[in-house]
Amino acid sequence: MIVKRPQGIAILFRETLPSLTILALWDLAVVVLFQVYHQEWMEQAALPISLMGSALAIFLGIRNNAAYARWWEGRSLWGLLTNNCRSFGRQVGSLLNGAPELATSMAAYPYLLAAALRGQEPDPTDIDRLLSPELKQRVFACSNRANALLYEIGLKVRSLSEKRGVDGALQSNVDRILSDLANAQGGLERICKTPLPVQYSILPNIATHLFCILLPLSAVQTLGWLTPLGSSIIGVLFQMLDRSGSNLQEPFSDTVHALPMKTIARTIETDLLQPLGLKPAPMPQPLRGVQP
Amino acid sequence: MIVKRPQGIAILFRETLPSLTILALWDLAVVVLFQVYHQEWMEQAALPISLMGSALAIFLGIRNNAAYARWWEGRSLWGLLTNNCRSFGRQVGSLLNGAPELATSMAAYPYLLAAALRGQEPDPTDIDRLLSPELKQRVFACSNRANALLYEIGLKVRSLSEKRGVDGALQSNVDRILSDLANAQGGLERICKTPLPVQYSILPNIATHLFCILLPLSAVQTLGWLTPLGSSIIGVLFQMLDRSGSNLQEPFSDTVHALPMKTIARTIETDLLQPLGLKPAPMPQPLRGVQP
Amino acid sequence: MIVKRPQGIAILFRETLPSLTILALWDLAVVVLFQVYHQEWMEQAALPISLMGSALAIFLGIRNNAAYARWWEGRSLWGLLTNNCRSFGRQVGSLLNGAPELATSMAAYPYLLAAALRGQEPDPTDIDRLLSPELKQRVFACSNRANALLYEIGLKVRSLSEKRGVDGALQSNVDRILSDLANAQGGLERICKTPLPVQYSILPNIATHLFCILLPLSAVQTLGWLTPLGSSIIGVLFQMLDRSGSNLQEPFSDTVHALPMKTIARTIETDLLQPLGLKPAPMPQPLRGVQP
Amino acid sequence: MIVKRPQGIAILFRETLPSLTILALWDLAVVVLFQVYHQEWMEQAALPISLMGSALAIFLGIRNNAAYARWWEGRSLWGLLTNNCRSFGRQVGSLLNGAPELATSMAAYPYLLAAALRGQEPDPTDIDRLLSPELKQRVFACSNRANALLYEIGLKVRSLSEKRGVDGALQSNVDRILSDLANAQGGLERICKTPLPVQYSILPNIATHLFCILLPLSAVQTLGWLTPLGSSIIGVLFQMLDRSGSNLQEPFSDTVHALPMKTIARTIETDLLQPLGLKPAPMPQPLRGVQP
Amino acid sequence: MIVKRPQGIAILFRETLPSLTILALWDLAVVVLFQVYHQEWMEQAALPISLMGSALAIFLGIRNNAAYARWWEGRSLWGLLTNNCRSFGRQVGSLLNGAPELATSMAAYPYLLAAALRGQEPDPTDIDRLLSPELKQRVFACSNRANALLYEIGLKVRSLSEKRGVDGALQSNVDRILSDLANAQGGLERICKTPLPVQYSILPNIATHLFCILLPLSAVQTLGWLTPLGSSIIGVLFQMLDRSGSNLQEPFSDTVHALPMKTIARTIETDLLQPLGLKPAPMPQPLRGVQP
Repeated sequence: MIVKRPQGIAILFRETLPSLTILALWDLAVVVLFQVYHQEWMEQAALPISLMGSALAIFLGIRNNAAYARWWEGRSLWGLLTNNCRSFGRQVGSLLNGAPELATSMAAYPYLLAAALRGQEPDPTDIDRLLSPELKQRVFACSNRANALLYEIGLKVRSLSEKRGVDGALQSNVDRILSDLANAQGGLERICKTPLPVQYSILPNIATHLFCILLPLSAVQTLGWLTPLGSSIIGVLFQMLDRSGSNLQEPFSDTVHALPMKTIARTIETDLLQPLGLKPAPMPQPLRGVQP
Repeated sequence: MIVKRPQGIAILFRETLPSLTILALWDLAVVVLFQVYHQEWMEQAALPISLMGSALAIFLGIRNNAAYARWWEGRSLWGLLTNNCRSFGRQVGSLLNGAPELATSMAAYPYLLAAALRGQEPDPTDIDRLLSPELKQRVFACSNRANALLYEIGLKVRSLSEKRGVDGALQSNVDRILSDLANAQGGLERICKTPLPVQYSILPNIATHLFCILLPLSAVQTLGWLTPLGSSIIGVLFQMLDRSGSNLQEPFSDTVHALPMKTIARTIETDLLQPLGLKPAPMPQPLRGVQP
Repeated sequence: MIVKRPQGIAILFRETLPSLTILALWDLAVVVLFQVYHQEWMEQAALPISLMGSALAIFLGIRNNAAYARWWEGRSLWGLLTNNCRSFGRQVGSLLNGAPELATSMAAYPYLLAAALRGQEPDPTDIDRLLSPELKQRVFACSNRANALLYEIGLKVRSLSEKRGVDGALQSNVDRILSDLANAQGGLERICKTPLPVQYSILPNIATHLFCILLPLSAVQTLGWLTPLGSSIIGVLFQMLDRSGSNLQEPFSDTVHALPMKTIARTIETDLLQPLGLKPAPMPQPLRGVQP
Repeated sequence: MIVKRPQGIAILFRETLPSLTILALWDLAVVVLFQVYHQEWMEQAALPISLMGSALAIFLGIRNNAAYARWWEGRSLWGLLTNNCRSFGRQVGSLLNGAPELATSMAAYPYLLAAALRGQEPDPTDIDRLLSPELKQRVFACSNRANALLYEIGLKVRSLSEKRGVDGALQSNVDRILSDLANAQGGLERICKTPLPVQYSILPNIATHLFCILLPLSAVQTLGWLTPLGSSIIGVLFQMLDRSGSNLQEPFSDTVHALPMKTIARTIETDLLQPLGLKPAPMPQPLRGVQP
Repeated sequence: MIVKRPQGIAILFRETLPSLTILALWDLAVVVLFQVYHQEWMEQAALPISLMGSALAIFLGIRNNAAYARWWEGRSLWGLLTNNCRSFGRQVGSLLNGAPELATSMAAYPYLLAAALRGQEPDPTDIDRLLSPELKQRVFACSNRANALLYEIGLKVRSLSEKRGVDGALQSNVDRILSDLANAQGGLERICKTPLPVQYSILPNIATHLFCILLPLSAVQTLGWLTPLGSSIIGVLFQMLDRSGSNLQEPFSDTVHALPMKTIARTIETDLLQPLGLKPAPMPQPLRGVQP
């Protein structure tokens, strides 16, 4: 995720440059052809382009709202994961009278989940630091490792509670936090596995390009030699709208616009280990304005 | 659900082709009539078509937002079902000290519900693999089979808890997960049984067609021989907006745009059986870019 | 609620016909006056009507969104009622070890509530089938009968639990379902007793009519003899937008557009009685495309 | 809150009359000046007014949506308060085996809260009817009286539970309802103490007035002597949009547009006392179409 | 947060003045150049500016809605924090039979959190008044102090409950309030650490400036010497829209538009200490219309 403004502007500019160049060349070609050959059939085409603009506005409006909502829901679900991991840590310390191995096992949970959402293998240093080898083996045998880890933690909480004679109502509170974690995890997987409907991921893009192609044709008569300027500015604005939506619609992708899942996982580890007096791994630093 | 972009574009194109052809023919007819007979009464009709465009925009805006919200709520409720089935599996293992037959019974639940939402009979191989014959018989005697299965699972949880002396607070946590499943199921049935109000499912469609018929009449004077091009592009954009909404408004239908309920049910089965060391049926594969 | 498309179109057409007729007559009158007497002062009034159109669009946008949200929230709350009644049925069977009279009492709850929301007396056959006479008497003595029934059910659950020695945690789960029912009921009463603010229920209607009156005046110069056609189509579109909103804003009214509360209440009865082996009353059938 | 349509129209008309008069006079002045002196510089100013209209539309759209959301959230939180008070009544009867003095104390809660939200003193007749003098004294010693009453009720529930040996799980359910009441109360105070940001409460108002001043200047050339009519209609529409928003943005104010807090408080009292066989105070009646 | 209208207008005016001045000078320069040299190439550029206006409207619409939603969610989460702190106070008094030191420790929680959200050190007078030195030391050793305080409070609740033999179900209710606090805290940190995507925080600003530069060029031909007036009014409206969004998008910043976190923290302290008969610090007063 981009966290510094100046680098953000630079990144956006770099991403926009190719299409801006192509767009400006096309606008130039149109104006040259028109000014040199004075095609009469290009006159007064104002109506269709503005009607097209309003169809495009509905498409982009719905798509960008949905994309932003996906991005923000993804962030909120990672937030819920953080909160419930912290609450689990507190409960392990208070309700279960302390069990550091449960807290460190839980600290591996966000790393497993983040890797699964990206379709990658988790970083072994994170996993080996936090999970015992036999637990790791049992968890990695399942296709959904994060869910398997929650299952194993649930078993441990139960056996520990029985050994220590923890009251059922207190156990059930820990179990509820595990269910809340399962809900947050399921929500993240839902966003990951269910892309925006093709209608809203493909059509706005096609319509924007079509619009940018037609734009100079409709503007050239009134704008004349200024067409490349006017038409490019408007074309770039609409292309940036389209791009803003498509940047946010996959919040777990491996791009600079994705959520900083590594940082969040490290925060969870820190908040779980520090109150126990354990030392977490250091926080990752932003690299060229991008939080990993 | 369409999960591959290239096939998605092909599907959308195939679906759009018929109306695009009719629209282009109509546009052509209008322009030929106009250019040949120069009807004076067609001049300067710009105002009404743009006012009509804004009424249409409100209709399509509300309808498409509502349709997308229905689709996404349907997906979210299936997500809740997944999460709560997983939590039920964890609770059976930890709170109830293990009971594999409860987990396999629950694995039949999404198949029963998915079939009911489509108004079909569930696939017998799925049901017979997971439900015991006597349980199947009791469940199939009720009109709402998924609800009857939850009822039966509730009875089993209760008798098992009494036999094993499970604490009331822990039992009550399992019961709460069953209530959460009932809430998710009820939400899915609500979306299924309550279509969008006719006003929003029929009128946008009629208005879009009317708009496409009037469009070339209002554009022909200024666009001349270019009318079929300009008018068709705009007409297709509005028709695609209309179609995007109607594709999503019934998320459990039997089309390529519906939610991948079979895949979700299989995921639930996998997540319930794998931690117990049981082997689930294999995941269904996407067929020509469409997840079943 | 209209559930069949063809009948839905017929109903919408019947409802629209009177205003469409008046509108067309007015449009005709305007065009005749203009074409015969060529009033100069009617020229070029395009700007105001489109500004007016955008004020109207904001009004209709907010009102229709709010009306749809009310309708869908009403439906969702009835869904919650259904879910919690089912969960209550499951809990009575499992947590309380079965008590058919509690399930049948609860089956009367949606009938009482639906009648109260419509301001009608409940159908005595439904109530007498499900409530014992003495319970009916106590409940009908209160002004809010549905709330009184929940109160009585709460007392019965408590006395039954004490008699059978049900664990407090399990009792408290039943009590929570009763609270969830109270929440759903309160939400329904809120929608019923709090109409849309007058600003949004009256002003869009007045503005739409004003707009339809001014529309032909502003279009007649450019459209000439086509005015009745163009102006009527646009006028009807805006009137249908206005009507779509006002149809949905009172979801418990006694019209064809209201929620099918009788069907929902019968569904709840069925889902409560069937798992106990009891026979519920038959489901009501749609009448001329309208679900009662 | 206005509950009758005819009176609502009358009230809206009365409120709009002054600004409508001023607006019409200004429009008249503009048209007279223009028609008599034929100022050339007023020609063709169509573009700016419609761009201004779209900036105004964004302002009014966001503000009115936010204002309606505040009003409806306020109503929903009062609804939650109602539901939880009813559930508290049911729990006192069932879980705590009856304690009428707890129900009557709770009936005073909405009166205290409603008065605090309006910044007024509560009506002594309501308070003295429901609270014992010593409880009243302790509660009135705190700056947040409603919160103090919840605190005192919590203490009473606890001591009563200990005396009667109520199970902890049942006590904890009562405690949860008290927490839900605290959440609803906090939500109401949040809306009350956090007005809409000044940007959205002041700027739409200023922009609307500016728009109404410029409107006849831009319309006078095309509308001529009809300007006062056209310009006033549009001006009044935008002013009513602005007013609709500002009417709803403070839902607890002392105007006819505020929520009927007195009626809601009385409803809560009724629903708490009637099932106990106690007689509540009579419901307040609407006065000239306005529910107090 | 600005709480007084007159000062609010003054503040907004002061903030707008510089850009208004620059804008007016630019508008003046354009009109002078045009009127003196009569550039022909500036004619009839109406179309592009209105298309640009609609791209800008989508940008500003999405951004301002998202910014307002962030601001209001921030306020709502602070509200949840308030409610749960109050409920914790009630539970300490009732469920745990009183423990004033727990209430005062909790009163320090919002101060710690508010300081962390602003990236500042908390005011030592607040902390030393409420936290014991040894607790302060343990809490300040962690990087997330608010979370560490919740952890410590959880441990104290547990040890106190064991000492006094508090029922597990009642303890679990206190634990749930602590989890709700963790959820509210996590939500606040989420808003704080995840700024709006650069696309929506930077691009609307750039587009607004571009729009204001092009505006007089496109208006000068039709407006002539009135251009500075018309163009400045519209330019200022759009700039204020842009500014309204950027003011609200960081609700915890150190500006006059931020949430009044100091006042909220003091309110929580008051509501926790007053029912115990303790005297809280006095409420902060608004300074020149701004609540700190």
